[in-house]
Amino acid sequence: MKRLVVLSTLALALAARADEGMWTFDNFPSKKVQQKHGFAPDARWLQEAQLSSVRLAGGCSGSFVSPEGLVMTNHHCAHSCIEQLSTKEKDFVAQGFYAQAQENEVRCPEIELNQLVQITDVTAQIQGATKGLKPGKEFNDKRKAAMASVEKDCAAGNEKLRCDVVELYHGGQYSLYRYKRFQDVRLVFAPEMAIAFFGGDPDNFNFPRYDLDVSFVRAYEDGKPARTEHYFKWSPAGAKEGDLTFVSGHPGGTDRELTMAQLQYQRDVALPERLFDLAEYRGALTMFTQTSPEHYRIGETQLFGIENSYKAVKGRYQALITPTLWNQKVARERALRAKVNDRSRLRKKYGSAWDDVAKAIAMFQPRRKEFKYIEQGAGFASPLYRIARDLVRGTEELQKPNEQRLREYTDGKLPQLKQRLFSKAPIYEDFELFKLSYGLTKLREELGADHPFVKKVLGKKSPQELAQELVKTKLHDLKLREQLWQAGREAVLASNDPMIQFARLVDADARPIRIWHDEEIETLEVSGAERLAAAKFDIEGKSTYPDATFTLRLSYGTVKGYEENGRPVGPFTVIGGAFERATGRDPFKLPESWIRANDNRQLNPSTPFNMCTTNDIIGGNSGSPVFDKDLQIVGLVFDGNIQSLGGDYGFDPTVNRTISVHSSALLEALDHIYSAKRIVTELKSPTTAATNPSVK
Amino acid sequence: MKRLVVLSTLALALAARADEGMWTFDNFPSKKVQQKHGFAPDARWLQEAQLSSVRLAGGCSGSFVSPEGLVMTNHHCAHSCIEQLSTKEKDFVAQGFYAQAQENEVRCPEIELNQLVQITDVTAQIQGATKGLKPGKEFNDKRKAAMASVEKDCAAGNEKLRCDVVELYHGGQYSLYRYKRFQDVRLVFAPEMAIAFFGGDPDNFNFPRYDLDVSFVRAYEDGKPARTEHYFKWSPAGAKEGDLTFVSGHPGGTDRELTMAQLQYQRDVALPERLFDLAEYRGALTMFTQTSPEHYRIGETQLFGIENSYKAVKGRYQALITPTLWNQKVARERALRAKVNDRSRLRKKYGSAWDDVAKAIAMFQPRRKEFKYIEQGAGFASPLYRIARDLVRGTEELQKPNEQRLREYTDGKLPQLKQRLFSKAPIYEDFELFKLSYGLTKLREELGADHPFVKKVLGKKSPQELAQELVKTKLHDLKLREQLWQAGREAVLASNDPMIQFARLVDADARPIRIWHDEEIETLEVSGAERLAAAKFDIEGKSTYPDATFTLRLSYGTVKGYEENGRPVGPFTVIGGAFERATGRDPFKLPESWIRANDNRQLNPSTPFNMCTTNDIIGGNSGSPVFDKDLQIVGLVFDGNIQSLGGDYGFDPTVNRTISVHSSALLEALDHIYSAKRIVTELKSPTTAATNPSVK
Repeated sequence: MKRLVVLSTLALALAARADEGMWTFDNFPSKKVQQKHGFAPDARWLQEAQLSSVRLAGGCSGSFVSPEGLVMTNHHCAHSCIEQLSTKEKDFVAQGFYAQAQENEVRCPEIELNQLVQITDVTAQIQGATKGLKPGKEFNDKRKAAMASVEKDCAAGNEKLRCDVVELYHGGQYSLYRYKRFQDVRLVFAPEMAIAFFGGDPDNFNFPRYDLDVSFVRAYEDGKPARTEHYFKWSPAGAKEGDLTFVSGHPGGTDRELTMAQLQYQRDVALPERLFDLAEYRGALTMFTQTSPEHYRIGETQLFGIENSYKAVKGRYQALITPTLWNQKVARERALRAKVNDRSRLRKKYGSAWDDVAKAIAMFQPRRKEFKYIEQGAGFASPLYRIARDLVRGTEELQKPNEQRLREYTDGKLPQLKQRLFSKAPIYEDFELFKLSYGLTKLREELGADHPFVKKVLGKKSPQELAQELVKTKLHDLKLREQLWQAGREAVLASNDPMIQFARLVDADARPIRIWHDEEIETLEVSGAERLAAAKFDIEGKSTYPDATFTLRLSYGTVKGYEENGRPVGPFTVIGGAFERATGRDPFKLPESWIRANDNRQLNPSTPFNMCTTNDIIGGNSGSPVFDKDLQIVGLVFDGNIQSLGGDYGFDPTVNRTISVHSSALLEALDHIYSAKRIVTELKSPTTAATNPSVK
Repeated sequence: MKRLVVLSTLALALAARADEGMWTFDNFPSKKVQQKHGFAPDARWLQEAQLSSVRLAGGCSGSFVSPEGLVMTNHHCAHSCIEQLSTKEKDFVAQGFYAQAQENEVRCPEIELNQLVQITDVTAQIQGATKGLKPGKEFNDKRKAAMASVEKDCAAGNEKLRCDVVELYHGGQYSLYRYKRFQDVRLVFAPEMAIAFFGGDPDNFNFPRYDLDVSFVRAYEDGKPARTEHYFKWSPAGAKEGDLTFVSGHPGGTDRELTMAQLQYQRDVALPERLFDLAEYRGALTMFTQTSPEHYRIGETQLFGIENSYKAVKGRYQALITPTLWNQKVARERALRAKVNDRSRLRKKYGSAWDDVAKAIAMFQPRRKEFKYIEQGAGFASPLYRIARDLVRGTEELQKPNEQRLREYTDGKLPQLKQRLFSKAPIYEDFELFKLSYGLTKLREELGADHPFVKKVLGKKSPQELAQELVKTKLHDLKLREQLWQAGREAVLASNDPMIQFARLVDADARPIRIWHDEEIETLEVSGAERLAAAKFDIEGKSTYPDATFTLRLSYGTVKGYEENGRPVGPFTVIGGAFERATGRDPFKLPESWIRANDNRQLNPSTPFNMCTTNDIIGGNSGSPVFDKDLQIVGLVFDGNIQSLGGDYGFDPTVNRTISVHSSALLEALDHIYSAKRIVTELKSPTTAATNPSVK
């Protein structure tokens, strides 16, 4: 804690010359990189990196690594898929997965890949739609309609395209991101969880580290491996200390540009509440997974996610209670406001922006729990509820013109919605019973036993009784879901399925609060934020990068260690280190395959295993490629160190580090532990690479 | 949230004329009470109230209600005892307990009662011992020795006396509290948990309320009911709206006088961390109690405590993030510091006090987790560890002169230590296994897998493996504990019991950090706080009450409702209301006895059930008597409303309410539901009341 404070002071002094930033591909600071590192990415280079990168729509990054649609990402990014493909008899999470031949590759029920093919500035259309309007219903209607319309025109009914209007600089700029969409994605390879996540939660976000957090999936089109002419090649030697490294990927979100009112809400309300929720659910879920091996198997994917979030959000909270960072942000906002207030032109245009944002928060606060539990369904966190809700709401929304629908039911969003709705992922009744009992109890606790919604939902039933009724739903049945979706609203209204009826009951209360939120709160916040961003552009120009928004970004940096508690931490670990750290007990237990390979002396213990670099990333970047200036893979991002968690609010170049699996370890393991020769060959000498004109 | 802000503003304006304060009996503002309520307690009245009040040393309050040692307190204050007396076959928590005759009263393994008999000001001795000394080792040694010596002289070897040096006004005043100690305390009556805690966690800290949160125990001396000449009589009619009410009891602690540095530490670090811990453990423990009926029976006492703390601490946190309260405290500290700095005499004496306190916090912060996990044993929260630790440390400390021992092993503390150490309370192996596995995992998480202490303690073992080894201890056996304690240090050192060996291993690391804390941190904080208090006395006089310290206090107020969300909340509920609220499902399920009595029309549904008053109380006041100016019982405190939770930091007279069981409901239930005629008679016409000269 103390150390962080000291370093943060230093950090800000260094920030000007730091390798900071999650840059959009259309505003990459090539000159700055040239000045510092002697290499300036040109337009063609940038385009190649962009087209070789891929997004996992569920919340991760990846890269094409062969011309035949092979995608490299993290184990933890395909974790759900691996679990969904497993059964009680065959547990691929524990045992790993390898498709010996292409025909053994198995489709993941819920993975969607997005390859960004085009960026268009649509600021004029979106901001223009609400020009002169006060925050409120009309503002919301016009803005929503403008976004839906831009997205629909862009995709033009082609389900293989995905078009998202992206809000950058908190509304200072709107960009249309057009993606090629892959929904047939098949699992190719995954190691055992024990090595993918060696060290488990205790080592998560730590460095030194010894994780083989990799999986390979393959994009398919029309039942065949997709032809992907843009892809990253493999570096023969990997990276060494001091090398320039790039990371392209999809950082999920940062809050570096929030106002002090927003930050205070984060510090005092939002983050603590989230941590209370995560902590309690973690306690319960851990116990659930310990009740039987089967419960462990079906629950551990979620447990991994919960523990990961818990540690990450704690790190963010830690950053916000660090007085140095806080005081710097106070000073920065004060200076900007002073500049705005100094000139009457600026004051008139932007002066009220901060107060509007603050007002939106103050208005939201007293109803935030109702929004969370009624509209967002925090107490019904089961896929069964989500399915019922999508059927109830979706069939209703689809009756409206595209522009008038709730954002998540517009035409552009339907392919992903349908993938989720018709997912073949197994649903386990006792796990859902556990989640619903837990959630309904929490609902009653958080809104209070006397809240009209709680009374309406529970009546005289206990949370457990209601949960038991709800899991009797027939929505486990994929055919029924398809049938109801096809039959539309009347069929859904007529259904006597308990979960459908429940979702209808909830929706009656949820819609008004959703509308209130969208019209009263969101428009006020958006209108304030748009003016704030404009003020910054007006005064500072567009010399910086926007906060992360789970869209493609490029960061640059170098292979570099750091200092911790006065001791240097080197940038590499080696494979031999994993054997030294192993205790034989979970989560420090190496898999059999590794012990065998080591016993048989098939492994080179001095092979670099994990590595850290100064690239500026955040959650969502998991699975990102680390590559050199020749667009060759030198690593696979899977984590940041503990010091990087404050990266949500600011980048500290002295200690903030990206952690990746070194490219040499990836090959070493594929080749000498898993004998995955087919993949090794595909990576090292991709069949069509020589004939691919666009790769240098 | 919003409402609280608004009311708090109002609150401070009203505070001057509010019924605020947890007053010591030697500084009660009788004149103020006279002015506002027309009644001035005199010395005799105060003494009678004092001697009729009693403390449960584990953390509650109570009152003598007959001359034969009968003590009224809450069900939740005797909950542990009721659970400890239960077995798998006979569950008194679920079924209730009633000793039909005196010989059926059963001894509680761990309840100690303290009756405050004398207060002496010892400020000169304690402060004098460290006069002129800088914070550090000598300061700590002298202060500790002075306290131990004053306490030892006071008790003079009589184990029936308990003498505690009490730090009031954060060291501004030291008082010696001399108590008569009762260690033979027997359970007389307890209703079913279902009505004692009707509404459970959802209704906890809420009002309107319908709880019969009562139990009766009896103090014994020499195997016979204690003769208690001072006791509260029963009010024939109980209290009505507007009546003046007094509450005597032992509020555990408040933080109304903390400095801003201390408050910021509370807000940003201490309270959130505590809530994270409580939330996660609550999640795990809830699941543990759901694994079998027996696990529920042995775990629910602790679950009740955890949930209660979780809600209470959340309320405190909520108060601290309320900007109005925060800003008022900032202003108050600023004004006081300005006054001190204005005059050179004051500045010289007190000027550095705030900075010293802040420095102590800053020094403590980086090692706070080591202190918590190594010295305080947060990861070993099992009675088995506590017993081993007391054997290891206690036998070592007893070799030193009284004045040189750690405070908790001085002669004055031994009777309570021995009661705990030799407690007959059952210990359940699988519950301890659960707690230790949980705690050791947490230890590794919080200090990190690479922390030397973690490596030393765990070695290559998993937390579960170590926990399994530790619960194999023979310390379940009461005889072994007595034997080791008698045999002393050498025997303990020679023991090969796994828990004893573990406690020794821990102690080697724990002692240095304990010494560092006591000498470097505590003395700095104490020396700062003493000067701060002196500055306040110097400027404001001793016109106010000290922060609560789990010592006897008296508060005054009236029976009064309040306003919530714009609607009035009346001060009473009635017994009939419980039947309306009941759903038949836990925790809104009434016990059979109540349903039967109601069906048989034995109950008067309009009997007042629970009541709220404006008395200023806090946790620790549970079980306190509510009495009128004639020293007659009109209620039994068992809770505060949700708005009272901020009472830790300030009293808001508009909404802060004490919640009690109305005296009429107590009699109605004892008489018409439980047919506890023996108790009813003892309460209504105590046999020796007429001959008791000191009761008016």
